[in-house]
Amino acid sequence: MPNFSDIAGLLADQAIELPSWAFGNSGTRFKVFSTAGVPRDAYEKIADAAKVHELTGLAPSVALHIPWDRVDDFDKLGTHAANLGVRLGTINTNTFQDEDYKFGSLTHVDEKIRAKAIAHMHECIDIMGVTGSRDLKIWLPDGTNYPGQGDLRGRQDRLADSLQQVYARLGDEQRLVLEYKFFEPAFYATDVPDWGTSYTHCVALGERALVCLDTGHHAPGTNVEFIVAQLLRLGRLGSFDFNSRFYADDDLIVGAADPFQLFRIMFEVVRGGGYGPDSGVAFMLDQCHNVEEKIPGQIRSVLNVQEMTARALLVDRDALAEAERDGDVLGANEVFMDAFYTDVRSDLADWRTSRGLPANPMRAFRDSGYADHIAAERVGGTQAGWGA
Amino acid sequence: MPNFSDIAGLLADQAIELPSWAFGNSGTRFKVFSTAGVPRDAYEKIADAAKVHELTGLAPSVALHIPWDRVDDFDKLGTHAANLGVRLGTINTNTFQDEDYKFGSLTHVDEKIRAKAIAHMHECIDIMGVTGSRDLKIWLPDGTNYPGQGDLRGRQDRLADSLQQVYARLGDEQRLVLEYKFFEPAFYATDVPDWGTSYTHCVALGERALVCLDTGHHAPGTNVEFIVAQLLRLGRLGSFDFNSRFYADDDLIVGAADPFQLFRIMFEVVRGGGYGPDSGVAFMLDQCHNVEEKIPGQIRSVLNVQEMTARALLVDRDALAEAERDGDVLGANEVFMDAFYTDVRSDLADWRTSRGLPANPMRAFRDSGYADHIAAERVGGTQAGWGA
Amino acid sequence: MPNFSDIAGLLADQAIELPSWAFGNSGTRFKVFSTAGVPRDAYEKIADAAKVHELTGLAPSVALHIPWDRVDDFDKLGTHAANLGVRLGTINTNTFQDEDYKFGSLTHVDEKIRAKAIAHMHECIDIMGVTGSRDLKIWLPDGTNYPGQGDLRGRQDRLADSLQQVYARLGDEQRLVLEYKFFEPAFYATDVPDWGTSYTHCVALGERALVCLDTGHHAPGTNVEFIVAQLLRLGRLGSFDFNSRFYADDDLIVGAADPFQLFRIMFEVVRGGGYGPDSGVAFMLDQCHNVEEKIPGQIRSVLNVQEMTARALLVDRDALAEAERDGDVLGANEVFMDAFYTDVRSDLADWRTSRGLPANPMRAFRDSGYADHIAAERVGGTQAGWGA
Amino acid sequence: MPNFSDIAGLLADQAIELPSWAFGNSGTRFKVFSTAGVPRDAYEKIADAAKVHELTGLAPSVALHIPWDRVDDFDKLGTHAANLGVRLGTINTNTFQDEDYKFGSLTHVDEKIRAKAIAHMHECIDIMGVTGSRDLKIWLPDGTNYPGQGDLRGRQDRLADSLQQVYARLGDEQRLVLEYKFFEPAFYATDVPDWGTSYTHCVALGERALVCLDTGHHAPGTNVEFIVAQLLRLGRLGSFDFNSRFYADDDLIVGAADPFQLFRIMFEVVRGGGYGPDSGVAFMLDQCHNVEEKIPGQIRSVLNVQEMTARALLVDRDALAEAERDGDVLGANEVFMDAFYTDVRSDLADWRTSRGLPANPMRAFRDSGYADHIAAERVGGTQAGWGA
Repeated sequence: MPNFSDIAGLLADQAIELPSWAFGNSGTRFKVFSTAGVPRDAYEKIADAAKVHELTGLAPSVALHIPWDRVDDFDKLGTHAANLGVRLGTINTNTFQDEDYKFGSLTHVDEKIRAKAIAHMHECIDIMGVTGSRDLKIWLPDGTNYPGQGDLRGRQDRLADSLQQVYARLGDEQRLVLEYKFFEPAFYATDVPDWGTSYTHCVALGERALVCLDTGHHAPGTNVEFIVAQLLRLGRLGSFDFNSRFYADDDLIVGAADPFQLFRIMFEVVRGGGYGPDSGVAFMLDQCHNVEEKIPGQIRSVLNVQEMTARALLVDRDALAEAERDGDVLGANEVFMDAFYTDVRSDLADWRTSRGLPANPMRAFRDSGYADHIAAERVGGTQAGWGA
Repeated sequence: MPNFSDIAGLLADQAIELPSWAFGNSGTRFKVFSTAGVPRDAYEKIADAAKVHELTGLAPSVALHIPWDRVDDFDKLGTHAANLGVRLGTINTNTFQDEDYKFGSLTHVDEKIRAKAIAHMHECIDIMGVTGSRDLKIWLPDGTNYPGQGDLRGRQDRLADSLQQVYARLGDEQRLVLEYKFFEPAFYATDVPDWGTSYTHCVALGERALVCLDTGHHAPGTNVEFIVAQLLRLGRLGSFDFNSRFYADDDLIVGAADPFQLFRIMFEVVRGGGYGPDSGVAFMLDQCHNVEEKIPGQIRSVLNVQEMTARALLVDRDALAEAERDGDVLGANEVFMDAFYTDVRSDLADWRTSRGLPANPMRAFRDSGYADHIAAERVGGTQAGWGA
Repeated sequence: MPNFSDIAGLLADQAIELPSWAFGNSGTRFKVFSTAGVPRDAYEKIADAAKVHELTGLAPSVALHIPWDRVDDFDKLGTHAANLGVRLGTINTNTFQDEDYKFGSLTHVDEKIRAKAIAHMHECIDIMGVTGSRDLKIWLPDGTNYPGQGDLRGRQDRLADSLQQVYARLGDEQRLVLEYKFFEPAFYATDVPDWGTSYTHCVALGERALVCLDTGHHAPGTNVEFIVAQLLRLGRLGSFDFNSRFYADDDLIVGAADPFQLFRIMFEVVRGGGYGPDSGVAFMLDQCHNVEEKIPGQIRSVLNVQEMTARALLVDRDALAEAERDGDVLGANEVFMDAFYTDVRSDLADWRTSRGLPANPMRAFRDSGYADHIAAERVGGTQAGWGA
Repeated sequence: MPNFSDIAGLLADQAIELPSWAFGNSGTRFKVFSTAGVPRDAYEKIADAAKVHELTGLAPSVALHIPWDRVDDFDKLGTHAANLGVRLGTINTNTFQDEDYKFGSLTHVDEKIRAKAIAHMHECIDIMGVTGSRDLKIWLPDGTNYPGQGDLRGRQDRLADSLQQVYARLGDEQRLVLEYKFFEPAFYATDVPDWGTSYTHCVALGERALVCLDTGHHAPGTNVEFIVAQLLRLGRLGSFDFNSRFYADDDLIVGAADPFQLFRIMFEVVRGGGYGPDSGVAFMLDQCHNVEEKIPGQIRSVLNVQEMTARALLVDRDALAEAERDGDVLGANEVFMDAFYTDVRSDLADWRTSRGLPANPMRAFRDSGYADHIAAERVGGTQAGWGA
């Protein structure tokens, strides 16, 4: 097995984009709990995200969600971010919170509503021009709740047409990233329910259309790392939305539900060429901190990704290949588990210290007084959430 | 196979309680769509429920949800219901929408919050005294999102103690009905996740504690009719919350996702002695009409239950027993399917007409002008939803 | 809604291929139960299959499985079939019962074993030349049981290469049909686990490579009819393996576990142009009759498909389209369910009679004495099963 | 967090029973691969099991399966075991491999067959008298494949009666352990499908009837550690069948699929008083080594259990309780994960050495030449498998 020092250099390549909405309130259909100090606008969200990056060195960019993060002057927002040491990243579209989209957006049978959804995405692309964002991420709520409610085929055809209109607006350096999801909010048929559907639409669009893999958007038992390997092989893995789950799209902290799965995913990323600045694969979080503190929740998340990345980099791939050639199932598994079971936390603390970062970012945050500061300062106004 | 005329008399025994909240707005964490004419208070909800009963003869009572349906004068509300031809039914507790319950209610580690939750249930029992309700239904959001967050064992012990305090307040003719749910809103461990947990708590409490089976609250693949049969055998099936699902707790219209499952459930109900006024089993709906119209949604639901009840009553149980004795798998299955595939809709239309009900309640509602009427009348105020 | 007479003509287009192995013994890893009269060889299997066709008019061809059905003279076997009124159909490869394939076949890391698997498929193609079969169906057991055991990416690359070598051998009128399966016999990673993987390999191969959709080979909750619609849209649905399931790949009689799902699948088939002689979509059964009688099990299966096809053809698609345009969720669902709930069994009995077929094929089989006949005649030898 | 030295003493309490059948061939319905050196009889199985104990010190007893391990003289078998340093443990019944049990055993509608199954269990109890075994373990294949095939309620009633007859035969120091399983080999309804069913039957039987929890026998997503905690609380956790799974009852090496789950299970065991010689909880493996070597597979398994037990013992439970009281979700989770992420392997190697065991049992086995020895010696005869 390689030593930590062999892989330490590679860790500098890690960059995980934070979602602005992770700092706002979120919850379930039953209740959204509120928390003192939650940001009221995009500026405050970015400040919180910048804090995460300051303490971890892992999160240099922030994804925005339109309209939640719409501001009058995106240039100013970008400068604000830069001043805090981060930059604006992926622009996320939102076609799930307008009454018009009750029966779909890019797939809607009513041409006027479909055009409205397309126009929204065009606006997002225009914002990308200002923010310098590379990726337009599209996640659609589109689907139906009852058999017969919609024409499954017709909806696909309209989706293809809508995506074509969106794609046509992209600049040469911009990409469209299409996310799939097994179910929710639609409970019978979802219009982009699996990687195959997202992939086939992307291929039809062109080279700058890629698949977004949200780790929580699969059927029970799905081997997610297989999909990672497959999409890398096909050259269409555009980005990750990291989170974890025990049941459905639980949106828990990445690595919290099944750390071994995260390890396996990171291993396929590394093996398949998806790691590093030239890979074209964007790493993002997409989580809901319903009951835990939000900023530490984000810190914990990026640390989890880093820890599993380190373990994945430690796998002795030559030994693995040899065991496979020998049909040595237990030997191969042992090589694999050896890396997983290696406790890299102390080495990572040293690595952080060597780079001027706090050895323990969780503790550093607690000690920073930032939580008290924002709780005291952010009084009045409306806390950000999924509705704003 | 029996003829419809053989079973027609039994259909008069069917009574399905409607949930007041089905007439309010509901949705997912992504969006709650609003609809014209939605009730603003308990009085209007009951009016809508009464309409369903007027057109179907199947829904003589309405379940209330506290605090959503709290009124100053429950006597007056009961009279309002009686005037409309229905009565007040099960009282549902709510410990999922107060900030205090972020980490649990009846299981909370903080004794003050646990006492508050118990006090809420005591208040609900007091309301039952006024409304003449038999059943206190408890569904708990209690659970944890992350391993380590809570002591699973301690939570069970506190739950047992809390339930004991609630049970002690019940009158001799009142019952406690404890609902279980696989997951949501908790995403790691739920404190009452399965029928076994609900059952063992009920047994510890006493004879008037019974299990509520929500048809959508199970793991993928669970054989729900087996649980129905088992709970009837054990004498602890208190009530049903009917709905249907493709994925998680989708809360779709009962019978919409898998009509054959509803048939199998109703067959076990009938075979196990759970049908009829003396059975002690309460039939209720618990659904969310997110994208479909609410009052017709409820009409469709009670009709679905009635249609599958009729089919279940038509099963030739002697032939079934004979086929089982003979090891005739295909013969037994054919007897079973014969009843399921029988189209009882025309017979049921005649049955309705014979009782002074509209042959087609869905059409009768459309023709009644009620939807337009309430849309025009219910202007201003705040539409009811899960938050109010 | 159309009348039965409107769709009766279309029913004549239905042809469902029977698997020869359905007439042999099958079971679980725990036990294979034996039955009197089970065929000892391919000739007897075809005789049983022909009996199903004689009584139903629905099953004009028989799929073979190599090596289980390997005979010295396939010409003679074809003549035998023709004499009994049926023909030889799809050739199924088998790379799961040789010790060499313990760690894979088309994906094996050992080039010698991979070549052996390819050679087997070439032999199957040669047999197709003799039998006049159109389709080579490939289902692979390939996969791994433990993380690390195999290189997921390497296995895909070898699979692509192997399939290319197989495809190259096909005649101009022959097709390669690649089946996917969620899991089993591999329990960690399966090399062709989903429709997306099968589809992408088929696209890489060429136009005569198509996807085989086995209705039991999906993750829990998967919307199978969506995949049907998608593959038809993409022009790559080659064939169905029909069966049904409650849990995993249970291989129960098609329509037995969820008749409404079968209806929805057949509706998408019809709507998507997958029905009828020109569609290019082959309908096959792939089931295990573990505890039920085998020949009647096949009769019941083809009747189930026919009944749901008739209901699917009865859907009023204009009314459905109108309801969708109006956003009338309940109206659309009612149109859809109206066809599903229509009891077509009596009309189908008349349809059969009008074509010289027995009104009730299940009863006709019981009355035929065929079961007693084969039980008496087929004494000695080894009953066919998955091992022979 | 405690130090390893604080918990080292507790590790000596660990005893994991090995299943004799793990050393025989096993597989899927598709294929059972054979391996050189596989035992031909119970004596050889015990020799292999003893090797595992010799190298790990963790597996002092061997479970037997009747009739697979039936010998003429169980006294002699016991002496054989004792001479090799192990003892005979749990007796497992088998009612799934006789043609008579096609439609059930303890639940069979035919009284003759039911009596035969009961008689088999009586024989097993008699064997326990000779072998000095404490536990009779009952796992039933009983269930149905098609709706209507069997009377779910009648089957429960017969099951209760049969178990009563079995229980009545037990000696005062003997226990009946009833295993539940979600599905397989039955594919519609299983007669003991969940812990609730097993538990209620055990309570009806008496104090010496306990539940066996097989970690692979649950629906997707089930929180297994919750059931562990609940059964310990109810005083009815009799034993574990350890294995792991990604999909169904995959029977993979325990800890291989989800090591974090095994950690959580062991933590609940420890917290709930299920660990240690006085707990009354038996730890057993029940796995299938389909593609991996069998003896090393068992060694790996007991080591996995030991490693996760050590980690579970390391959890700082006081810190956990404090974090729960404070509502500190992330803090609690960090305490929990801290133990899980601690690499105990080196400490365990030292612990082994200090007890005269090889530091690395996997390597010690490879170096022992035992595999070559048995491959050379065990020639001729029939390799043991599920059929013999």
